[in-house]
Order: sequence, then structure tokens, then C-alpha cells
Amino acid sequence: MERLELLRGDLARRRIDAFLVPRSDAFLNEDLAPADERLHWLSGFTGSVGLAVVTASAAALLVDGRYTRQAREECGKHFEVIALDDGELFAWLRGQLAAGARVACDARLHSIDECTRWQALARQAGLHWQELTENPVEACWRYRPAAPDSPVVAWALEHAGMTAEAKLERLAVALREAGCDALWLPAPDMLAWLLNVRGQDIAIAPLPFSCGVLDAEGRLEWFIEPERLQLPDNGLPATVSVQSPDSLYPAIARRAGQKLWIDRQSCTAAVYRQFQQADCVLHEAPNPLLLQRACKQPAELRGMREAHRIDGVALCRFLYEFHCRCERFRGQSELSVVESLERWRSLHADYRGVSFDTIAAAGANGALPHYLPKPGRAAKLAWGELLLIDSGGQYLQGTTDVTRVLACSPPSGRQCFLYTTVLKAHIALASCRFPAGTSGQRLDSVARQALWREGLDYAHGTGHGVGSYLHVHEGPQRIAPHASDVALQVGMVTSIEPGVYLDGELGIRIENLYEVVECEAHPGFLAFRVLTLAPLAVELVDRAMLTQAEAQWLDDYHRQVHASLSPLLEPEVGAWLARQTGVNNLPFEGR
Amino acid sequence: MERLELLRGDLARRRIDAFLVPRSDAFLNEDLAPADERLHWLSGFTGSVGLAVVTASAAALLVDGRYTRQAREECGKHFEVIALDDGELFAWLRGQLAAGARVACDARLHSIDECTRWQALARQAGLHWQELTENPVEACWRYRPAAPDSPVVAWALEHAGMTAEAKLERLAVALREAGCDALWLPAPDMLAWLLNVRGQDIAIAPLPFSCGVLDAEGRLEWFIEPERLQLPDNGLPATVSVQSPDSLYPAIARRAGQKLWIDRQSCTAAVYRQFQQADCVLHEAPNPLLLQRACKQPAELRGMREAHRIDGVALCRFLYEFHCRCERFRGQSELSVVESLERWRSLHADYRGVSFDTIAAAGANGALPHYLPKPGRAAKLAWGELLLIDSGGQYLQGTTDVTRVLACSPPSGRQCFLYTTVLKAHIALASCRFPAGTSGQRLDSVARQALWREGLDYAHGTGHGVGSYLHVHEGPQRIAPHASDVALQVGMVTSIEPGVYLDGELGIRIENLYEVVECEAHPGFLAFRVLTLAPLAVELVDRAMLTQAEAQWLDDYHRQVHASLSPLLEPEVGAWLARQTGVNNLPFEGR
Repeated sequence: MERLELLRGDLARRRIDAFLVPRSDAFLNEDLAPADERLHWLSGFTGSVGLAVVTASAAALLVDGRYTRQAREECGKHFEVIALDDGELFAWLRGQLAAGARVACDARLHSIDECTRWQALARQAGLHWQELTENPVEACWRYRPAAPDSPVVAWALEHAGMTAEAKLERLAVALREAGCDALWLPAPDMLAWLLNVRGQDIAIAPLPFSCGVLDAEGRLEWFIEPERLQLPDNGLPATVSVQSPDSLYPAIARRAGQKLWIDRQSCTAAVYRQFQQADCVLHEAPNPLLLQRACKQPAELRGMREAHRIDGVALCRFLYEFHCRCERFRGQSELSVVESLERWRSLHADYRGVSFDTIAAAGANGALPHYLPKPGRAAKLAWGELLLIDSGGQYLQGTTDVTRVLACSPPSGRQCFLYTTVLKAHIALASCRFPAGTSGQRLDSVARQALWREGLDYAHGTGHGVGSYLHVHEGPQRIAPHASDVALQVGMVTSIEPGVYLDGELGIRIENLYEVVECEAHPGFLAFRVLTLAPLAVELVDRAMLTQAEAQWLDDYHRQVHASLSPLLEPEVGAWLARQTGVNNLPFEGR
Repeated sequence: MERLELLRGDLARRRIDAFLVPRSDAFLNEDLAPADERLHWLSGFTGSVGLAVVTASAAALLVDGRYTRQAREECGKHFEVIALDDGELFAWLRGQLAAGARVACDARLHSIDECTRWQALARQAGLHWQELTENPVEACWRYRPAAPDSPVVAWALEHAGMTAEAKLERLAVALREAGCDALWLPAPDMLAWLLNVRGQDIAIAPLPFSCGVLDAEGRLEWFIEPERLQLPDNGLPATVSVQSPDSLYPAIARRAGQKLWIDRQSCTAAVYRQFQQADCVLHEAPNPLLLQRACKQPAELRGMREAHRIDGVALCRFLYEFHCRCERFRGQSELSVVESLERWRSLHADYRGVSFDTIAAAGANGALPHYLPKPGRAAKLAWGELLLIDSGGQYLQGTTDVTRVLACSPPSGRQCFLYTTVLKAHIALASCRFPAGTSGQRLDSVARQALWREGLDYAHGTGHGVGSYLHVHEGPQRIAPHASDVALQVGMVTSIEPGVYLDGELGIRIENLYEVVECEAHPGFLAFRVLTLAPLAVELVDRAMLTQAEAQWLDDYHRQVHASLSPLLEPEVGAWLARQTGVNNLPFEGR
């Protein structure tokens, strides 16, 4: 394979015996710009997580269980496919290399935690560990796409709800309270939020590739190409100095001896080593920006609600189309569903693209929680199957993420049983009240217990935070068995998305986004208020399985969806929505 | 106060400026033998957790929030009462002492973690830290009770289900797998379990005060007075050598250089220092005995079930008495309830005493989860109030722990609402199924959510492990918000005990013990099977608040209680139980 041989030649010249190629970029993102698709260029692997390792005579690709088969198909000819695991990696390296051999990585693409772990394992294995700050792959990659340079524009205060000045000052207060001189801001989404700007450096989130250092007086060094900025006069606070990305390392060196706040989670090894070399005193703690950002401003929440109304209109039109022309969708590929949904979303002027690649999974494909239909190997929708659609949009007002399951024909009793069980899990958490201070970790089993009762479970988290016209996955809060201890707080947004996955048969997931709000009935308690507006698949609901409270939740939700969307829908779509949700047959308020 | 002055004289002779007196013993127990009641002797404090600190001119008593008032009443004249907190302790010491002053403790009564923390805080405060292995209080304590020396007898294999030989060997396997030479066994309950013996060195658990060191070949040095043993010939495995407790430190010294498994959680500073001085390589990890013991043998589980039948008979007789003569209990003190329950329990030949001091709390006293009625300040049962009774027995077959709430008169709607809400929380967890590998921490909110829904919660854990004719609190498993990651496993026993506590008004807790069993319906899943057999307060249940599944659980439970106990009860008690639980009116099986 020519590319492998090119790389081997380069490694030989550098006297490197083994080189690691991750799927990552300098911001430790999983969503890459074309210029950062080093792993794909080298191996042809199209999954979202993987690591290649190349020696003079062998090569391996490390992937997790969900990608094993795909990796073998895509790269099995030239790469041995093994499990993505430190132990496996070093066992493989020991098998290939003599003692004292040199193993290298590009330290700009790995977290400091990863490099620290690998350095120790290399020592144990009798190997020499080397961290580069350049990349042999790039040296070999002819016709490498240009680095992203989308224009960087203002995100209106009307949406952000808080000026950049105020955000800088609030963050500086956290620095002063911790006695720190400066804070390392490693990632584009942090700068985008902090400065109320957006770019489009990757396809699925409005990121301006850049990073920064904030000091305790609220002064920010922002490392981004100045020519990219298309901001109005006074578009940036006076305390922000824009600097070329090339000047980052010298700027770090100028901070010699300072007490620097750094979050190991999001820090590359390359930058971490620079701060170490500058003799900075490192204060290692979670980045305080994350929690400040997660508790959204009222204007951001208004925007999220508006984005969900816009998205709900598109979803209803799509669902109406699917419903009315189900027999025409049958026989079509999963990609036709992706296209139809995209077409309805793109009708709105504020739509800016998908917030992640749309999952449309028919039948057994639904059982793979990370399945993506691709041209040439998308399945066709067939009678008797369920279709799982997990999708989201980026709007000027906010970001959406929703999963619905549709029946391609009158459903079976088993399909209804499983769908209703997932719905019960969803309702259990969505209607949960909890004391202020409760972490997402403690809420995880509230959803799962409804599935556990039937001997079912799912191997992913129950909920994740969502950015405001930013990443669709945004921390620090999570609802998962082994997540952080971060408490859910008023103004946070989270998904709730339990599911069941039966190998070779089907997948069902029901996902809405919710804001965390004060519980009106009980002071000191919090609750969820729904953002997502899209009808559930009533034809898949076995109402006899619902308790009175669950049936009430479902009816109330449908009443809200109908009330919010019907004024915005074409009459025939609105009429369908009313029929579909049975809203006209419900008593006006509760039972 | 004479005792304080005596101690001060002794401290002056030792040139100690401040001395710490905890409520603890050499096994870090909370339940003390009279000879270990150093804190009570010195201060008069009768609470279960506290720490005195005495200087030449001042004295303080540190207690947690639940004991503040009581400590002031009992000791306020001579002791300043402050919060039980490291920061408070050292702030107080800094206020009393000059720089360089000597602060001492008896290292035999503190964990290594505590001493390590305090040593560092003393250094920060400019104080000199000293660890004694003798106790000035003992030097001053005239008429100190003798150390416990109850006879140590065999616990029949019929109850234990596994020979001491087999237990020693299984534990030695864990040592060999970890590459350790020896394991420190610091506590009487560990030796009692390991060797199938029982003593009676404290009132509420059959402990033989002793400790031991096991080596990787399964040889045990057991440190206990040989004359206490009343075991049959061949009552101990050949690999056990009985040694005087005085020979412990020399025995540790003989282990110089060995790799020693030690659990910091249960290790005193005094012993830890001895192993350090012997240059042992310390392998610090949870004691493997705990998990082996927690997964009970079938014979132990049979014993627990039998103990609960015996206890259930006593509980039913007591409840019948209370029910029939409610008007005679009204006006009596809480202590009359304690006495009545004790009388019914003690009728059985295998009863060995309470497993903890009985909580009988009338009205507002119920809102204090750790309230204990005491002569002279027990409340009287009054019309309109609820009575909370949390009690347990030690039986030759096993240990029980149960909480019931009774109405002293026809209950109010509010009382019924609260009781039924707690019952819903109890049922939610008791009927929960969960995948193997799930920790108690993940299950905690399954119970709480029913209370959260009504804006209620409780400030204690949801469940604890229970020993087999041993401690009523036994780890390593727990069901609590911030507990360990230990998975619940088949054969473990746990309490489920949600509650509500309304200050100045009432307390309600419903506690049963359960075994963890395989879920019959779903392979790979676990469930709870109830051990406790005692009717719930149906007069406090608002059935309209129960879902169909909850009502079914309640009826099934009562059917099981009736079926198990009625053959063992006097006809009139059995008839009452049938009426009380409505069993005669239930369809024979389910609905």
C-alpha cells in the first residue's frame, strides 16, 4: 500500500521504529476537518474512533468492539485489527519491536493523560518513548486539504444573553479565587462561547479553530488568524488581543513561573509540556468555563426553545410525509430518509446544517447504536421493520438532537412491547423530580429500572449536555452510570435517551432534550422541562402497559407539541398531527 | 471536675499539652465494651460518636450535628461543644496552645488515615504530633471494668456452611494471586467469621475480641487469650496457632520485609506503624475477606431465613399486643415498647440479645433518625401520634433488623399520605431487577425517586449489609448516594430502609432485609428476595395512591408473611394477622 510505504520511508529517515496515528486533532475533537483526517488517509478507516500503529514491517489498527467488523472490511488487507486498549497496543508493540526501539507519536494529537500512560507502558516494555510536535503523515500526504479558515462572525447578544466582557470577567473571578495567574483554554468551542463568535471549521458545529490563554485580570490572548475575523467594529472586548496561532509557544514561554489553571481532560501533551518547560506551577482542575457555560442564560434558553420549535416543524413535515407515503419510502434506502429530513430542515433560513451525521437505521441496523448509513451500503426500508432516526440541527438560535422510531408497517406486539418499555424508561426520568445538588450519575438508574424490570438494558449513557448553537455533546454534566459528580443545575440542557438494542433484530431509542428547571411544587427540588417538540409513535404504544401517570405524561406531551407547532404547520400537517396524537379527543386539561 | 483534673495531672507528668480521647476501641468499633468507654468516663457523653480534647486549662467535645444539643446538656459545664471536623479541631487547638506544643493521641484507638491527616494538620499548625501506644485515661480510671473475656465457642458448621479450613484456604488463594505474604486481620468479626467461632465481648454482637495475621499458605496466627477458648477437640484447623494478644507486636516484627496486605479502612495507626517499622512492603487494598464473607453460604442464608421466621413470630405477637391494647400503651413511655418487644423476642431459646439498641420513637422523636429512648427522658405515646420502632435480634441462626411504624390512634390523612409515599419508595427498590455488576450506589435513587416526587428525601443511606449472627452493619456493599463501587452479588444480604423525617412532627421508615438472588425471569439479572416477615401498617396505607403493581407487591408480601408465620402463631394472633393483612380476602394467587 503506497501510503503506508511512504510513511515508512519517512519514519526510517527519522529513525522512528513505530509511529501512532490517532483519529483526533489539535483540539482533541472527534469531529474532524478534512485536513485532520490523517487516520483515514493512511488506512481508509471511516469509523469515528481508532488508532493506527505502523512499524517498518507491520501495521495494526486498534478499534473498539462496535468497529471491529468494519475495520476488517476497510483495512484488513494491510492492517491487523486489534482491540483499542493500552494492554493490546503494547503487547503488539513488544511482539514487533526489539528492546530499545523508538516508539513515537505526534504529541499535538494526544491528551497528556494518554501520553503519560503510554510513556510508562513503553518504559515497562523496554521501549524508548518519543513525543514529536510535527507529523510524519503530513510530510507524506500529497494534496492534503487546506486547514479550515472559515470566516469568524459575531453571535448576536440577543442569542448569547451575556456580553463577552461579562463572561471574561466572571471567568477571571474564578481564577482570582483559586489564586491562579492564567487559564489555558484549549478548544474552539470554549472561545466561541466566551467571545460570542462562531465559525464553520467543521461540518457539524460552528467552530472557529483557535485557542487562548486568559489571565486573572480578564485579559485574553486569542490565537487565531486575524484575517479570518469578520466582526463589527468593537466586536471584541478591549481586553482581547488577537495573535497568530504560530505565536502560541512563545506566548506560553512568556508565562514562565506563573500559576496556571489547566484541565488535563482537554489538554494535549504538546501544550502541557510547553507549560512545564516554562516552569509554570500547574493548578490541575476542571476548567471553570465548562460549568459557567453549561448553566445557560435566559436568552440562550429562549433560543433553544425557538430552535426546537423550528426543528419540530421540520420533523412534523417529515413525519407527515413518511406517514402519508410510507409505501413509497419502503424499498427506498435509509439515505432517502436522511435526505428527506435534511430537505425539510433546510427550508428554514436560520438552519445552519446538521449537528451530527444523521443516523437512519432500518431493522437490524438499529441495533448498532452508532450505525451510519453510507452510500453503497445503506439498507432498504422493509415491511415489518422499525426505522430509528437520530438527528439534529444547528440553528442560529440553538442546537437540537432528537431520536424517533417509526414503524414501516403495522407493528407487531413485540415491537409495541419494546417501544412502550423504552417509553416508560423515558417518562420515568423525564417526569422525575430531584433535590438540588443531585448528580446525573444518581439519576441514571431512574430511567434504566423500567428496562431492567423486563431484563433489558443499554450500553450507552442516558443523557448528555448540549451546547447553544455549539457542540451537540457538551459537558460537564452527564447522566450515566460512571459519570462525573457534577450536579444538574437550573439552566442546564440534557438529553434523555434510553433504548433497547436486540442484535440482528432492531433498535429502539426515544430521545428528547430537556432544560433543568426549578420544581414549582417543591422548593429546593429540580425537574425537567421538555425542549424537543415531535410526536411519539402512538401506533407503537401499548397503552395498557402505561400507568395512569405515564399515560398522562404522554397526553400532556402531545398536547404541548400540538399547541406549539400547529400554528406553524400547513393545515393538512396540523390536522394529521392532531389525529396522530389524538389531541382532539383528549379532555382539555389532565384527567 | 475530678476526672478531668486527674487526667490533666497525668498529662502534665508526660509533658503532653493536649490529648485526644475518641469514642472507639482497638478494633475501631462504635459498639464498645464497658472497659472501652473512655470518653464516657471522662466526659459523661452518652452519644455514639464523639471526640474529646483536653489541655491543661480547657476541654472540648466534638460531636456531629445530631448530638450537639445532647452534648451540651450532658457535658456543657466542663466541655466546650464544637463540630466534629478536622478544621474545627485544629482551629480550637491553635486557639489554646502555643507554637511547638505537644498534641498526643492513643494510636491504638485511631485509624491510620485519621492519624495521618491529623499529623499533617498539626505540622501546618506548628504543633508537635505524638502517637502513644498507651492511654493516660486508663492510668487515671479507678474501678475501670475488666476487659471482656467471654468464652469463645464454636458456631456450628450447620449454620456456617463452610469449614474454617476451607475459608482459610480460599482467603490464602487471594493472597497468592496478589503476590502477598500475609494479610492483616484487624477485627473480631473477621476472626469470628473465618474460624466459625463466636464470643460475647460486646452486648449487641457475638464478638470474640481478637485479631490475626494470615499467611499465603493459609496459616493463621490468632491473637486471643487461649484460656477463653471453649472449643471442642479439633475445633480449630491445624494451621491456626493461638497466641497471646501481648505477642502481637513481636509477631509483626518477625514478618520483617514481607509483602503485607493491609486495608487502611480498618487498620489502627498503632498497628500500621508496627508493620512499617518491620519494613513490610505494604499492599494497601480492600480486605478480601469482606467480599468473601458478604456472599453468604446457602447454609447461612437458610439460617437468616429461619432467624427471620423466629423474629417474625415475636414481632407479630408484639404487634398483636400493641393492636389489642393500644389504649393501654398510650400514656406509657417509649421504653415500655422496648421492653415488650424484648420480652417477646426472648421467649425463643435461640435468641441471644438485641442486634442494636432498640429505637422506639414516639411522635416528633421519630424525626431524629438516631433517637434512643432513655430512662428519665423517654416520651409517652400519645393519641394522634405515630410510633417508629427500629429493632433487631441476634439469633444463633442469624441477625435481624426491621423498622415498622404504628399508629397510636386512627391516623390522619397526612400520616397516611406520608406512610404510603415511603412504602412506594420501599417497593420501588424491593421489586427492582438489575443487571449483575450493578453497585448499590446506582440503586439508591430507585427508592428515593418516589419520595423526590413529593418533595421529600432522607439524609441517610438506603441500605446496608448484615452479618450472619454477627454485626448488624456489615460491608462491603451499601446502597447509598456516595457509597463504594462494590457490586451487589448473589447471596448478599441488604436492608432497604427509605424514610421521611419532618422536624418536630414525625418520622416514618419502612425497613426489611433482603437477600440478593438471581432473577428467575431474566438471566444475567438479579433481584431481591425478602427475609423480614412482619405485617406492614395497613391502616396507614392509602391504597388509592398505589399503582396496580405496588398493590400487588403489598398483597404478595402479606400473603407470604401470613403463610410463613401463621403455623407458628397462637390461633388468636394468627387470626389477627389474617384480618390485619386482609389475606383471607385476597384471591389465592396474584390478580
